[in-house]
Amino acid sequence: MKTISLLGATGSIGTQTLDIFREHPEEYKLAAISVGKNIDLTRKIIAEFQPELVSVQTMADYNTLKAEFPMLKFTFGEEGLIEAAVYDKSDILVNAVLGSVGLNPTLQAIECGKTIAIANKETLVTAGHLVIEAAKKNNVALLPVDSEHSAIFQALQGEKEKNIERLILTASGGSFRDRTRSELEQVTVEEALNHPNWSMGAKITIDSATMMNKGLEVIEAHWLFSLGYEKIDVLLHKESIIHSMVEFHDTSVIAQLGTPDMRVPIQFALSYPDRLPLTTGNRLNLAQIGTLHFQEMDMERFRCLKFAYEAGKIGGTMPTVLNAANEAAVAAFLEGKIRFLQIEDLIEQALSAHQTTRHPSLSVIQEVDKETRQFVNSLL
Amino acid sequence: MKTISLLGATGSIGTQTLDIFREHPEEYKLAAISVGKNIDLTRKIIAEFQPELVSVQTMADYNTLKAEFPMLKFTFGEEGLIEAAVYDKSDILVNAVLGSVGLNPTLQAIECGKTIAIANKETLVTAGHLVIEAAKKNNVALLPVDSEHSAIFQALQGEKEKNIERLILTASGGSFRDRTRSELEQVTVEEALNHPNWSMGAKITIDSATMMNKGLEVIEAHWLFSLGYEKIDVLLHKESIIHSMVEFHDTSVIAQLGTPDMRVPIQFALSYPDRLPLTTGNRLNLAQIGTLHFQEMDMERFRCLKFAYEAGKIGGTMPTVLNAANEAAVAAFLEGKIRFLQIEDLIEQALSAHQTTRHPSLSVIQEVDKETRQFVNSLL
Repeated sequence: MKTISLLGATGSIGTQTLDIFREHPEEYKLAAISVGKNIDLTRKIIAEFQPELVSVQTMADYNTLKAEFPMLKFTFGEEGLIEAAVYDKSDILVNAVLGSVGLNPTLQAIECGKTIAIANKETLVTAGHLVIEAAKKNNVALLPVDSEHSAIFQALQGEKEKNIERLILTASGGSFRDRTRSELEQVTVEEALNHPNWSMGAKITIDSATMMNKGLEVIEAHWLFSLGYEKIDVLLHKESIIHSMVEFHDTSVIAQLGTPDMRVPIQFALSYPDRLPLTTGNRLNLAQIGTLHFQEMDMERFRCLKFAYEAGKIGGTMPTVLNAANEAAVAAFLEGKIRFLQIEDLIEQALSAHQTTRHPSLSVIQEVDKETRQFVNSLL
Repeated sequence: MKTISLLGATGSIGTQTLDIFREHPEEYKLAAISVGKNIDLTRKIIAEFQPELVSVQTMADYNTLKAEFPMLKFTFGEEGLIEAAVYDKSDILVNAVLGSVGLNPTLQAIECGKTIAIANKETLVTAGHLVIEAAKKNNVALLPVDSEHSAIFQALQGEKEKNIERLILTASGGSFRDRTRSELEQVTVEEALNHPNWSMGAKITIDSATMMNKGLEVIEAHWLFSLGYEKIDVLLHKESIIHSMVEFHDTSVIAQLGTPDMRVPIQFALSYPDRLPLTTGNRLNLAQIGTLHFQEMDMERFRCLKFAYEAGKIGGTMPTVLNAANEAAVAAFLEGKIRFLQIEDLIEQALSAHQTTRHPSLSVIQEVDKETRQFVNSLL
C-alpha cells in the first residue's frame, strides 16, 4: 500500500485523484491533504478518506474545521502546504495545486525523499533547474501527471533517451481553436471557460484557450525529459485522442492514446512502474470516432506559445516571468478586468521589460515572481 | 557486431534487410543467405556483402554459381535452407522466406540457440505451438518483423503482459478495400497486385486483398504474444500510419506509428533491445497527412479473416489447413487458374473437409500441409 499527500485535493486533479483511491482502496492510503476554499467538499473528503493531516488556506477555516473534527490534525497557509507535502507517513506527493505557490512544497518534499507526482506544471516552468537538480541529488522520481507528459512518459517506457529524435505534444486548440484573432477581440470569460474536450479548472482552461497551457507544457517537457527546445514540437489535434508522441531516430513514433480522462495519467503516476485496472474508464473506440485530424501549429495565431518557446530558450528567470505574468493576467481576465487578447499583451510587456538572470536561486526566483505580478497589476 | 543468416535474401523483406546492413556496416555482418530463383540479384548480393554460405533452390543454379565463385560455399534445396539457417557463425536468423517451407529452418535454428527475426508468418500460423515451445525450451528470442507485430512489440516495451486488455491490429484493407463483394467477381491479378500503401511480394499482396494476410497475422499475434483470440481485434485504417496498438486494462492505448517502411520493423528486430538511426527513412509528418481514418472490420465482406479467427480458435491442425489451402489457392490465382473469389471458396472447402488433430507433431503438420495442397489442387 502506498501512502499519499495530496495538495489541491478539492481541485479538478485532486478530486480525480480521490476517484483513483476509490477504485483501489487496497492500494492507496490518503495521509495528508491541502485544500483551498471549498470547505464543504473538504468535510466530505475528511469523512470519506480520513486523512491524518489537513491543511487549509485561511486561519478562519482552520478554526472552523478544528472545532468540527477535534481528533484530526489541521494546519494552514503556505507553511501548512509544506507540512502536508512533507508529512512523514507519505511515500508520494501528488502536487495538484495551482500556480507557482506549488514550488516550495515540491522542493521540500524532494528533500525528504518523497516520490513526486507532478500536476503543478508552474513549478517546473518557474524553477525547472532547481526541481530537477534536487530530484537528481535526492534520487527522487518526478512522475508527470499532465496528460501530454504522461503520454510521453508512457511512450518512453523501455526506451533509451539517446534514441529520441523529438517529442510531439498534441494540442486540442482549446475553446477558441476555430476563431481568427479578430474574432477573439470580444470573447467573454464564459466562452473561454467552455473547453471542447477536457473538463478542467478555470486557470488551465483559459491557458488552453490562449495556448499558454501548451507553452508551459513545452517548458515542462524540456525539464522532465532533458531535451532541447528544438526537439519539442507541438501539433494541433482537435480530438485529444492521441495525448502525445515520441519520435525516435529510426523514424518510429510511439504514441499514447485514449478517451480524454485525467484519471488515466493520474493513476499511471501512482501505479508506476506497474499499471492497475481502471474499471470505470471509457475504452477507446477508434472505429466509432472514425477520424483523427492533425494540423500545424500557427505561432502567430497562438502568440503565447511563441512567447513560451522564446522564454524557454532564453532560460534563467525568463520562464519565471512568463509564468508569473500569465498567472496575474489570467486572474485579471477571470475577474473581468481585462479583455482576452490583453492576456498576451501583458505577458509580452512583462517579458520585454525583464533582463534574465542565469542560474537563479530560489530566492531570486521568488523575488522575480513577485515583481512580475506587481508589474502586471500596475498595468491594469 | 551481429552476424546474420538471411533466408529469402532476394525477396522484398530480404532486400530491405540488406538495406539495413548498408546503413550500418559496422553493426551487421551477413554470413549466410538463401535465395530463390533470382540468380542475377544473387550475384550482386554476393559481390556486395560477401556472405560465406549461399543456398539456392535448384541444383542447376548451384552448379552455375559454384563455377562462378569457386571460393564460396554453396548448397541447395530444402537441406540448403536449413544449412543457411543454422550456419554456425550466425547469431541471428532473419527468416524472410515465403510459406510454410520456412518452418523447418526456423525450428532447427531455434535448436541451435539462434535469435529469430521472423518475417515468415506462415511458420507461426502452421505450427505456432511447436515454434513457441522450442523457443521457450532453448531460451531463444522470437522477434517479429511484420510491421503490425513489430508495432505491438514496440508498444509493449517496458510493459507487463498481465496488464494487456487487447491488441488492435490495423489493416489497410488492401487493393480492394473499397469494392463490394459483387465487384470482386471479375478482378484481375494485376488489379489485385496493386496495393495502395505497401510495396510487397505477390503472395502477401494477394493475401492483403483477401484480408487473409490479417487473418494470418491474428494467428501470429496469438502465438507471439500468448493471448487468446478474444483479446485480438482488427481495425480498418486505410492510411497504414498507425501500424498497430495495445490497449491496457487502465484504458491507456500505446500505438506505434510511422510512414509505411518495412525497414523500420526489420531494423528494430535487428537492433533490439536498442534502436539505431535510420537516416534514409521518411519521418512521419502528421500535419501533412492531415487525417487518419478508422472503421470497423466487416467479417462478411472479408470472409478470409473470419476463417482465420475460426481456424485459430479451433486450433490443432486447423490453422495448418488454413495456411496450406491459402498458399495453394493464391498460387492458382496468380497462375490464372481461378478467379479472385474462388480463393475464399477453396479455403472454406479445405477447412470444412478437415478434422482437426490436437497438439500435432511436426510430421503430422507436414503431412496435413501436403494433403491440403493436394486437396485444393484436386478441386482446380
